[in-house]
Amino acid sequence: MKKLINSPETVVTDALAGMAAAHPSLSVDIENRVVTRADAPVAGKVGLVSGGGSGHEPLHAGFVGYGMLDAACAGEVFTSPVPDQIVIATTAVNGGAGVLHVVKNYTGDVLNFQMAAELAADDAIEVASVVINDDVAVQDSLYTAGRRGVGATVFVEKIAGALAERGASLAEVAAVAAEVNERSRSFGVALTSCTVPAAGKPTFDLPETEIELGIGIHGEPGRTRAPLRPARDIAAAAMDAIHADLPLQGDLLVMVNGMGGTPLIELYGVWNEVSRYVTGHGARVTRNLVGNYITSLEMQGFSVTVCRLTDALAELWDAPVETPGLRWGR
Amino acid sequence: MKKLINSPETVVTDALAGMAAAHPSLSVDIENRVVTRADAPVAGKVGLVSGGGSGHEPLHAGFVGYGMLDAACAGEVFTSPVPDQIVIATTAVNGGAGVLHVVKNYTGDVLNFQMAAELAADDAIEVASVVINDDVAVQDSLYTAGRRGVGATVFVEKIAGALAERGASLAEVAAVAAEVNERSRSFGVALTSCTVPAAGKPTFDLPETEIELGIGIHGEPGRTRAPLRPARDIAAAAMDAIHADLPLQGDLLVMVNGMGGTPLIELYGVWNEVSRYVTGHGARVTRNLVGNYITSLEMQGFSVTVCRLTDALAELWDAPVETPGLRWGR
Repeated sequence: MKKLINSPETVVTDALAGMAAAHPSLSVDIENRVVTRADAPVAGKVGLVSGGGSGHEPLHAGFVGYGMLDAACAGEVFTSPVPDQIVIATTAVNGGAGVLHVVKNYTGDVLNFQMAAELAADDAIEVASVVINDDVAVQDSLYTAGRRGVGATVFVEKIAGALAERGASLAEVAAVAAEVNERSRSFGVALTSCTVPAAGKPTFDLPETEIELGIGIHGEPGRTRAPLRPARDIAAAAMDAIHADLPLQGDLLVMVNGMGGTPLIELYGVWNEVSRYVTGHGARVTRNLVGNYITSLEMQGFSVTVCRLTDALAELWDAPVETPGLRWGR
Repeated sequence: MKKLINSPETVVTDALAGMAAAHPSLSVDIENRVVTRADAPVAGKVGLVSGGGSGHEPLHAGFVGYGMLDAACAGEVFTSPVPDQIVIATTAVNGGAGVLHVVKNYTGDVLNFQMAAELAADDAIEVASVVINDDVAVQDSLYTAGRRGVGATVFVEKIAGALAERGASLAEVAAVAAEVNERSRSFGVALTSCTVPAAGKPTFDLPETEIELGIGIHGEPGRTRAPLRPARDIAAAAMDAIHADLPLQGDLLVMVNGMGGTPLIELYGVWNEVSRYVTGHGARVTRNLVGNYITSLEMQGFSVTVCRLTDALAELWDAPVETPGLRWGR
């Protein structure tokens, strides 16, 4: 295992300490592994809390800041955060208007956020939850009942975060989060595996000439293995899977996301194919992201996430955001 | 070779087409491989042109936009752009106030930018050049006489770009670019090699238990190979090399840059060590970047770049920038 780390035991806390050192806009509780906006709680604003296993950076802590999340809870690599962490985060960002939990659909995450929501309710904090389940690749995968939650999480955090910043109610913020999730679909492809530091060996084996279509962000098996082929065909396979589930139409927000080890020159090549595919199917990409947003350690590969926009969603997407991982002017 | 590409022959143009599709703020001449701001030339503003081999994305085309570069020329992967491209870019962004060429110190780049500057002068375009040579690792490396130009290029493009945006003269913009270069030092470390698509095999071999200290951005040999060790020690080795060349003091702008295949969780861990090192040596990090800014395809590893700030340089660093690769509000 060749990694830039001090030890498998400290990889998460070392990174959190690095985030604290790099970003004064964040308040980092290293012991509890909770990252909050330094100005939390924002009085009268709905608080947004997300979290999950580490190894997907910038998700989630990199999306804490103005216009997006109020807090993120970091689990061990590819391991759910525990309820205590989530309660600490929920309490810290409760500005009196309630707190929305943004939860990726993995069994551990769902259970732990649910337990945390109940504990927070005991403390008279109103909590709503949205469970993200945008991955069209498989049903009932390893770790998950139903569909996995992947790239749409970034869209939900951005758009619901923007609405919360405007003073919307918890019900309104939860509704827009659910709406974005319902309108979004994703599909991932791996060229290589990745190595969880504590495991010390690759999560799965993938021969030099094969790719995994429909990969999960923890290296969960996808739909099928196939021979390596031109990016054009790989992108089309991903888009076919999405289009079959939710036909492309109208104005779309589309992300081509790197899995962590994919060079940007390749992501732009994939973007070219994805954008041609969309146009060829009579829809329009009106907003986009190309880069590393929800990663799987050093895995090579990409995922594509499509959201059918409405004018209201597009306007919330465009709203200012100030986080380490996503930033445009306010 | 496992890559998300259509073919080695089209990897650069496919990526440029993707950039064009993703970023309407850019005007992309795919045939000539020149990326300009869509609003170029900006009348009365000094134009900034950079370029170099592809495979270092987001450098350079990802830094084209308000407050940074006016144009970038993309060579083949790890190959200098040709003079014709550079002349086209120089002409396109000449708003009447002259053009600054930002050139990384590699023999091919230096020669081709020089020839282009002479050709542009024949067309009565005033051109100044700054050659970036911040890499302390080695002198007279493969491809280079003197020191290589690496991470400081990002700082120069940002800071000189900000000054140009304010209407400074060509002499002033060239002077600040030279000043940033003189005040900056870099050092890179590779955990793995990378594969140039047209070559089809790794540029060099690095055993599973060894790292290369002082690596160049094209995989040029560094100072030494050493056993893999904790990130703390690797970061210290990089910082020792920089500190020995230009002692850390005062306010610093510091970048921990991923080589393309390094997960962000590891870069933040390295950042933690780098920032401790700086503090331990009595200096202060007052500005920072952590992420992928000048990459080497899918290489795993990092580089660190340090610039001794002045108040004026810090203020130019903070000025608004709107590019695909670096963005904060105006």
